[in-house]
Amino acid sequence: MQDLEKVDKVNFTKLNFSNELIPAIVQDFKNNEVLMLAYMNEESLRKTLETGTTWFWSRSRSEFWNKGATSGHYQYVKAIYVDCDEDTLLIKVEQIGAACHTGNRTCFYRNVSI
Amino acid sequence: MQDLEKVDKVNFTKLNFSNELIPAIVQDFKNNEVLMLAYMNEESLRKTLETGTTWFWSRSRSEFWNKGATSGHYQYVKAIYVDCDEDTLLIKVEQIGAACHTGNRTCFYRNVSI
Repeated sequence: MQDLEKVDKVNFTKLNFSNELIPAIVQDFKNNEVLMLAYMNEESLRKTLETGTTWFWSRSRSEFWNKGATSGHYQYVKAIYVDCDEDTLLIKVEQIGAACHTGNRTCFYRNVSI
Repeated sequence: MQDLEKVDKVNFTKLNFSNELIPAIVQDFKNNEVLMLAYMNEESLRKTLETGTTWFWSRSRSEFWNKGATSGHYQYVKAIYVDCDEDTLLIKVEQIGAACHTGNRTCFYRNVSI
């Protein structure tokens, strides 16, 4: 396990988990495709940093969710960014297989006509 | 104004605004850089579709917010995607100037060491 006290260019403890969950955007580190958005709490971020794969909090199932644990479609974390007001994460990953449960590479496979 | 009844590959009205606000990821349409995340309600999405520039709902100020209206840093909408469970938007834009109020091109200018 990493020493979380040292896991900060941004100080890890400063992240704004006041609402308990913050959105985490997951992006392909190779081509910058946005793959999905899910939610993290402080513990799921710790698990992510410990294991090098993404852990989220499932709002529908109220449980931790290690992406890929059942499908094999793990996301190996390459970099984590935090936004200016520290309430959103951007996680660059190596995506194994499909990010979306539908089998699509990305969850954003449909567009709204404009 | 566009006829919103026709604004759907995904049906516009199916978007899950049950929590009133949904996150909208804003991405540079040219290089796929993720610029920011903000929140939309149904009316701000309508305004976005009407004007071709991004409108969000400011949670801190409780008001609509047309990105760029004060800074000049407008976001011209090129495409809007919706995710598989229809509770997150991905908006590809032409970003004028900086997306972040700090003057950085992206709000995600700091990374968490891993």
